[in-house]
Amino acid sequence: MTKEQLIEQIRKKKSFLCIGLDVDLDKIPQFLLAKEDPIFEFNKAIIDATHHLAVAYKPNTAFYEAYGIKGWQALQKTIEYINNNYPEIFTIADAKRGDIGNTSTRYAKAFFEDLQFDSVTVAPYMGSDSVEPFLAFKNKFTILLALTSNKGGLDFQGLDIDDSKIYEQVLKTSLTWKNSDNLMFVVGATKAEYFKNIRKIVPNHFLLVPGIGAQGGNLQDVCKYGLNNDIGLLINSSRGIIYASNKSDFAERAMESALKLQQEMVKML
Amino acid sequence: MTKEQLIEQIRKKKSFLCIGLDVDLDKIPQFLLAKEDPIFEFNKAIIDATHHLAVAYKPNTAFYEAYGIKGWQALQKTIEYINNNYPEIFTIADAKRGDIGNTSTRYAKAFFEDLQFDSVTVAPYMGSDSVEPFLAFKNKFTILLALTSNKGGLDFQGLDIDDSKIYEQVLKTSLTWKNSDNLMFVVGATKAEYFKNIRKIVPNHFLLVPGIGAQGGNLQDVCKYGLNNDIGLLINSSRGIIYASNKSDFAERAMESALKLQQEMVKML
Repeated sequence: MTKEQLIEQIRKKKSFLCIGLDVDLDKIPQFLLAKEDPIFEFNKAIIDATHHLAVAYKPNTAFYEAYGIKGWQALQKTIEYINNNYPEIFTIADAKRGDIGNTSTRYAKAFFEDLQFDSVTVAPYMGSDSVEPFLAFKNKFTILLALTSNKGGLDFQGLDIDDSKIYEQVLKTSLTWKNSDNLMFVVGATKAEYFKNIRKIVPNHFLLVPGIGAQGGNLQDVCKYGLNNDIGLLINSSRGIIYASNKSDFAERAMESALKLQQEMVKML
Repeated sequence: MTKEQLIEQIRKKKSFLCIGLDVDLDKIPQFLLAKEDPIFEFNKAIIDATHHLAVAYKPNTAFYEAYGIKGWQALQKTIEYINNNYPEIFTIADAKRGDIGNTSTRYAKAFFEDLQFDSVTVAPYMGSDSVEPFLAFKNKFTILLALTSNKGGLDFQGLDIDDSKIYEQVLKTSLTWKNSDNLMFVVGATKAEYFKNIRKIVPNHFLLVPGIGAQGGNLQDVCKYGLNNDIGLLINSSRGIIYASNKSDFAERAMESALKLQQEMVKML
């Protein structure tokens, strides 16, 4: 998918909502456990109910790996289902990968070619040659961890180097890499005040923003500083939407939660 | 496995060799491709030929993910084969994972409980709560990326904060985390002169050292500064051993390459 196609979808749906498909068998409606592939059945119902309100889906690979081969099969079926039925949707493998050059190429092929995701999240710690193999894929996006929304996020990301923080240095350095147009960045919503400065460094790139809802971030604050001429934001919500109910009405309630967020987004656009 | 069992194995075998099982179907003997599971058949032959010379095996998950479900099945069969036939061997999932707290727990369960690895490599960028879920597992080890051996390794790891480098800060901070006794660290062999300083910060922990051989590191230099009273080193070689030949003699030639490294290790012990 191209950046232009993503922006077109956002303007058409009046939404920059990304739904995190972090499926936990302990939390989904228990009647689904009788199905042959409960994870896929859950995802399918959520996607069918929310695809008109969301522009992206983001399965976190940890939740699938935790179920071994069956988990990977469910992940594969989920991405195929989205690509076959809702090809306008932007898909994100939240995998936080990264390794030395030739090994990163393996990961890039796994997510971009084998699984046919539009994008993958990547960790920056190993530097240029751990990220550039992902950037080499045309019309695919590499979403680099910059400032994460978790408790320990600032342990290293917040350290000072000269007059900037590590996460700012990651942003600056990554712009010098080959095919840096294919970058997007993870920036946690729990630190909305940081968006102002981040937008000075990366005015044109998309930011994937977790931490709205369950993790306490505020949509209005993020939009105030984070929106750009291309919208430039993908706001992720996982638990707040997919676990809105664990009864038979789970898909309908997920739709309602997604609608609520999308309606807030309409005001921001 | 306990640290004491690992040390006992090292002393018994007079080896601190780790063999990287980074299987590439383009590089293995082509007659294996006719088998039902070429990746597993290759690993099995390598393991059977080298298990008396190595104390650890380290499959890099990227090489398995690149082959989708079949790759994961081969990884699962490989770890089961090692655990069933050579239970004294220390196993490392070179996965470089890391995510927010509850998600890291998923990864930890995938590698420690489902796949039954003894250890997993983890990236530090997301800080304390991304690593501590791995450390919570008893008699399992979390091998934190500190200083990696790749070209871009120093892009961020080598930045200065006050009077130390980022990778030194990662080492220092990680020692304050809960269950830090379950830590080991990845330190690349291409920077042997750094080991002296690293050993001042982490005198007692094991270091997993990639970059010997194919990446240009020198065993003697690493041992000079890296060995401690518990040995404290696991030296990894991947391509130099497993691809010593791509003919029918591949396992025998892998054994010879492993033997050569092990014989050098005998001199260091």
